Order: sequence, then C-alpha cells, then structure tokens
Amino acid sequence: MSTPKSWLPIAANSPFSLANIPFGIISTTSNQDPRPAVAIGEYALDLSIFSQNEGFCASPTIQSKTAVFLQSTLNAFAASGRPFHREVRTYLQNVFTEGSPYSNLLEANKELQAKALIPLEDIKNHLPLAIGDYTDFFAGKNHAFNVGTLFRGPQNALQPNYTHLPVAYHGRASSVVVSGTPLRRPWGQILLDSTAEPKIPTFTPARRLDIELELGMFVGIGNELGEQIDINKAEEHIFGYVLMNDWSARDVQTWEYVPLGPFNAKNFGTTISPWVVLADALAPFKTTGLKNETPLQSYLQEDEQNNALDINLEIDLTTSSGNTTTISRTNSRKLLWSWPQMIAHHSVSGCNLRPGDLFGSGTISGEEPGTQGSLLEQIQGGKVAIKLNGGEERKFLQDGDTITIRGWSGEEGGLVGFGDAVGVILPAVERV
Amino acid sequence: MSTPKSWLPIAANSPFSLANIPFGIISTTSNQDPRPAVAIGEYALDLSIFSQNEGFCASPTIQSKTAVFLQSTLNAFAASGRPFHREVRTYLQNVFTEGSPYSNLLEANKELQAKALIPLEDIKNHLPLAIGDYTDFFAGKNHAFNVGTLFRGPQNALQPNYTHLPVAYHGRASSVVVSGTPLRRPWGQILLDSTAEPKIPTFTPARRLDIELELGMFVGIGNELGEQIDINKAEEHIFGYVLMNDWSARDVQTWEYVPLGPFNAKNFGTTISPWVVLADALAPFKTTGLKNETPLQSYLQEDEQNNALDINLEIDLTTSSGNTTTISRTNSRKLLWSWPQMIAHHSVSGCNLRPGDLFGSGTISGEEPGTQGSLLEQIQGGKVAIKLNGGEERKFLQDGDTITIRGWSGEEGGLVGFGDAVGVILPAVERV
Repeated sequence: MSTPKSWLPIAANSPFSLANIPFGIISTTSNQDPRPAVAIGEYALDLSIFSQNEGFCASPTIQSKTAVFLQSTLNAFAASGRPFHREVRTYLQNVFTEGSPYSNLLEANKELQAKALIPLEDIKNHLPLAIGDYTDFFAGKNHAFNVGTLFRGPQNALQPNYTHLPVAYHGRASSVVVSGTPLRRPWGQILLDSTAEPKIPTFTPARRLDIELELGMFVGIGNELGEQIDINKAEEHIFGYVLMNDWSARDVQTWEYVPLGPFNAKNFGTTISPWVVLADALAPFKTTGLKNETPLQSYLQEDEQNNALDINLEIDLTTSSGNTTTISRTNSRKLLWSWPQMIAHHSVSGCNLRPGDLFGSGTISGEEPGTQGSLLEQIQGGKVAIKLNGGEERKFLQDGDTITIRGWSGEEGGLVGFGDAVGVILPAVERV
Repeated sequence: MSTPKSWLPIAANSPFSLANIPFGIISTTSNQDPRPAVAIGEYALDLSIFSQNEGFCASPTIQSKTAVFLQSTLNAFAASGRPFHREVRTYLQNVFTEGSPYSNLLEANKELQAKALIPLEDIKNHLPLAIGDYTDFFAGKNHAFNVGTLFRGPQNALQPNYTHLPVAYHGRASSVVVSGTPLRRPWGQILLDSTAEPKIPTFTPARRLDIELELGMFVGIGNELGEQIDINKAEEHIFGYVLMNDWSARDVQTWEYVPLGPFNAKNFGTTISPWVVLADALAPFKTTGLKNETPLQSYLQEDEQNNALDINLEIDLTTSSGNTTTISRTNSRKLLWSWPQMIAHHSVSGCNLRPGDLFGSGTISGEEPGTQGSLLEQIQGGKVAIKLNGGEERKFLQDGDTITIRGWSGEEGGLVGFGDAVGVILPAVERV
C-alpha cells in the first residue's frame, strides 16, 4: 500500500502518519474544555474548531453530524458507526494530502491552521470515551499457559474451558485512566506464608505489583439487551483500539480470587493510551492469530480467518534513577481469540454492549524469553530477576518505576501507531 | 417511634408510609421525560413539578439546589450527600404531615396537587440512577456455605479468605434493569456430562436458570482514585437501598467460571426495585448481622456494631398458569459483612467509587428450609423439587415464570417498604 504524501511535514518515524488518523479528547491551557481531536504528525487537529469553521463543508453527510465533535467524549462519534468513522477518517486524510482537492479547507487556510492545529506538546489528553463497562478477556494463550503452569504445572495449565470459549471477567471501569496518570501502590490483604495453617493474612501495601500488557478495544455501536451479535457482523461494532496496562497486585490476587475472580488486585487502576486507532486504520494489518485446534460452537465460527492484528508491542521500564530498559517485545497476533469472537461470546447471553464499553484482550505474551507481557512470567514466578540497564534488577515494580507501553503497525512513512501508555507507581498512601 | 399522621390518606399496609419517602425516576404518558419523584401512599410526587412550583421555597438550602430534581437520573441528587438527602426527606415528611406549618405548600394547594401528585398506577418507573460500576459482593454467609457445600462438601464450603474479607466481583452494569423489564433466557455453553473426558460443551439455552435474592446499595458521594474510605465514615457514602434479583444461569456458570469468576452466567440481567429507600429511612432498623468470629484487619473494624439492616424479604414465584407461591422468607440481617465494611474493602486498594455505583450484598439466605435466596439451595443442588401452589413443581425457572421480590422494615402504619422487584423469563431468542 503506497501512502500519499501530506502537505504537513510528518516525520517518517511518526506514529501518526497519514495512514493513521487516531481520535482522542484534548484540552489546552487556553481552552480547558475537553474536546475531540485527531493526531497527525506533531500536531493535534482540534475537531471542535475545525468543524465549527466549516472544515467539513465538503461533505454534507459529515457536516450534518458535526455535533459529535462538540462533545467532551468520543462516545457520540463511536455510536455513529463504522461507515461514518470511515467517512470522517478518509475525509481528514484528504484534507492533509498534498494536492488534494480539499487543499482550500486547511492547507490554504493559515488562519484556521493557527487555531485548529495544536502542537502535541501543548495539549493534555483526557480519557477518550466515557467507559460504561470494562470487560477483561484472557485471550493471550501463552500468558494463560505460563501463569497456569506456575500455579498448576504444565499438564493442567489451561482450564478445560479455555479453548472452547474466550474466558473473561468484568473489570472496574471507574479506575481506567489515560496515559500519564500516576497510580498509587495499593494496600490489600496478602498471605505471607501460604503453607501455614490457619491462613492469616497481613494488611500491607502490595509487594508483588505487576503489569499486564494488553490491547484494548472500544465498542462503537452496541446491541439491545436480549439480542445477540452475529460473529460475522461483529466487526461493525468495533470503534477502535488502544494500548492497555492492566496493573495487577499478584499477592492480593492470590489471596482474594477464590471463588469469584480478581477484585482489589486489579481495581486500583488500568492505564490506556490516549488516542483511539480506528478499526479501519488497522484493517490493512489483519493477520492470523494463534491457531485453535478445538472445534468451535457455531456462534464462535468466523467466515473471516484473519481477524488478528499485526501490532508490534513493547514495554519499557524506567527506574526512578532514570534508566530505561525495554523488557518485552511482542505482537498482538499472540491471541487465541479474535475481537469478533469476544464480541459474539460477550453478547451470546443477550448481554447488551454500549458505545464506549472497553474490552481488554488479556495479557499478550509470545513464546520466547523477553516476549512476555507480565513481570510474573518474566521472573518465572519469582525465581529469576530481570536485569535492567544501569545494573539494577527487578522482580516486581518498585515505587518510582515508570512503565511505558508502545505499539505500532506498518513501516516508516506510513506508521499506524498508538500514543504511549505511560504510568508511574507512587508510594502507597500513608495510614496512621 | 411514633409516626406522625399525613393529610394524604395512606393505607396502613402501604410500603410508602410517611416514615419512608423513597426516591425514583418516573415518566407518564402525558410527559415522557424521565424525572425524579418520591413515592407516598398511592401516589408519586413529581419533584420536577413540585420544585418548579416553589414547593421547596420554605428551605433556602433546598431551593438553591433544585437543579438535582430536573435531571433524568438521581445521580446528581445522590452526589449531593447524606446531609442534603436528610434535609430533603425531612422537608417532604413535613409537607405531608397533618397540621404541619408547611400545609400551604401542597395540602392547601389543590392546583399543585393536581399537577404534582400522580397515582402510582399512572406512572412508569425507570432505572433510578445511571450505574457507573456494579459490584456484587458475596456477604450472605449462609448462601456461601450452602453453595460451597454443594460443590466441595461442608468441611471446605467456605474458602479460607471468606471471613477475612468481603469477597466480591465486578458485575455487569449495562444489564441492570428496573423492575418489570422482561428478560430472555440466555444462551450459553454448558457441560451436559461433567464426568466425560474430554470435556465437550453443548451450546444451548440455559437449563438451570436461577434467581439470587440480594439487597442493593447505591453509592452517594464517591472518592478520588488512590484515596481510601475510612470505615467509620463509610456511612456518609451511602445513598440508599433497593431490592435486587441477580439472575444466574448455573449451568453456564459451572463451565465458564474457572479461573476468573462468573461472566455470561450473570451478565444477561439483574433486576432492581424502582424506588431507592434512603439510608436515613432505614437507620431506625439497624441491627446486628451474622457474627464474625475472625479477628479483622484494622481497616475492617467498625466502631458501630449494629450496621446490618432488619429488612424482611420474600420471594414469590408465579407460574405462567397464574399460580403464585411464596418460596422464600428471609431477612437482610443474614449477612456477614456490613455495607461500611464493603465500602472500606472496595476502596482500600484506592479504587474510586462514583455516585450511582451499585453494590449487591450477595445472595441472602437464612439457616432454615424456606429461607434460602436461590433455587439452587432450595432444591439442594437438584435433588428435590419445590412444591408450588396449584400442584406444579420447580427445580429451576421455566419460561413464563415471574419472580417477585418484596422487602419491608417496620410495622403497619409506618412501613418502610421497597417497591417490588419483578421480572418474567421469556423464551430464549430463536437462532436459525
């Protein structure tokens, strides 16, 4: 695919090439109202200003729906559906394309450029959508196997249901935060000696604080309660994708999670990247995921076999002394279940999805050392330490550690990248 | 406590006595905009009309905040805090009290009565609050023991963590519906023969569809991410209570729930009663809950020992042939954990609560036959059937069955009751 050239200078290594056009919610010091924007090169295009200055006048369809760009979240835009998202993205690509007939809209309008094109370093990103429900899947088969092996040995690593249905649990929506939001180390009950009887927990700040590298998906159009979403129409319900770090307190989790699943171990924070990459921007990067040998129930059988996404993913750990180490390199292909399968399964009970609902893929790990999406896996449950640049080591996170997740598809000049998902761990709150 | 008399005729057996004043969201055929109201006797007082006609003019404090009564949900009112809820409830009690100095506001104003007092049979109830997150606890110790016994025997019925912390999981907020909303029997994967190897699930409408009698609690004031709520201040975060039926597909649950907890088995619907009974209305009915012999961590220790609520609870099953049987009689005292303990535990990790968040207590069961809050317990896992009036029997729910949950505190003439939480099961959606 050859990418057209933009009249706006865009560095070859920019994650926000003309092939991307991701959507977010921004504010600035001079205008603190959160409002929609797209990222392009080193700039954000303020869609509230662009739309109010006739930026969309060349498309009567878009022009009639610009109210979605005057909101403080992207929910209304997400709810407008894939064909509309496609139309807006294509239109904006045209606006920025050199020699396009749309050049009068922005290229030749220096006054509007000055108002609507804002350097990325001058903006603040907000949560892009108001999240109704957050569901976290467990589709990273290598992660499920690695963690299951640590707990139950390799013979029983995966539960019998694992290859029959995309296992998931309901997560906490209120504590999903946008990249850059610091998080405090959580307090909780942990079991210091799991062999002692009776089991008496200790109340302490979590000591085994971990990360989970995931891909996140935002729902666009929802469904009514009692209606199932057909797997072969599920793509139409996808708005777009973000990177995600589902921070996890492993010691809290071990003690609390029977029989109803993780709760406080996960609900203190989940970090997402600021820009939603539209499903259409990632369509050229569809590929096959992990192969499932298990015959599937009819509602999980897809006509399309290439519903995984080829997105390169990396995790950096930066210590408080400023040393940065890339501790993991993997790819979102490493999932057993596709997004349409997750959508079909979630709604097969009649559960209603709403615009702005967030799905997490589950932790994404490859097969090789250095490709795992959690520290727990990298340190083999605690047996080994990760060697960091500068001579430090890590098992679990220390106060002051910063985790940065990066992700991109494609090649230089036409990168479809996410903004980073960054979070720093602050010390636990003091209790008197 | 002697209850003052109202100038409005209120039947002695009305759940909506002057001692109650529960809040809800209503609409009518002539005005389909959802808006706040309180229930009193056989009427709803439309608070949007009442406040816009100077109904609150005798209180400058309330008068300055009547915008909360012009919303389509009670979230803004809930977020205004316990002192304000108390002030509004007391004010409205005065408005309806015979011989009160407030008699000119409504008793003597027939024109406003005609506009603002609407017979309950003429209103439609809506979901009272927009629910950000729904968390379901597992505080019904008898239920946990009964179900644990069925799965693991009486010696291992309760997990080691059970008496140390209020076990909970994140539920699905989108499918919480107001009383009267029919629900379809969910489809799902179930294991017909759990002993066969390999385990091959069957895709079918759920066959073991059950109920869960719970008390629900709506959060009023929330907390910031990273902040813990002190247990002895947790009461200030409670807006009020509803009855809840957390419908459950037991066969789907058994297959899907390892290792991350229930998902599709619960996410097809949760029914709540329409009127939120304020925490203050239930304050006279505080009592002791189930005794916990386990020494508790500091953050779960309460100064106040009487934080359970003495609410009588009943479940009716009405078959499609019209026979109604009361299948359970219990009380919300039968919980091991108090609401302040649940709030303190939920936020101890720093998890933020928001106005409108919903907590479920977990299924409430007594110790005796006929006091259990789920069918699974009543039928001893399937060994016996429940005998219904009219000669029918039930193990799990059949299509066309209607479940009605009732709840009340106090005595005739001063009842503090909930509207019923009613739901009928429709046949599963047809698949071609």
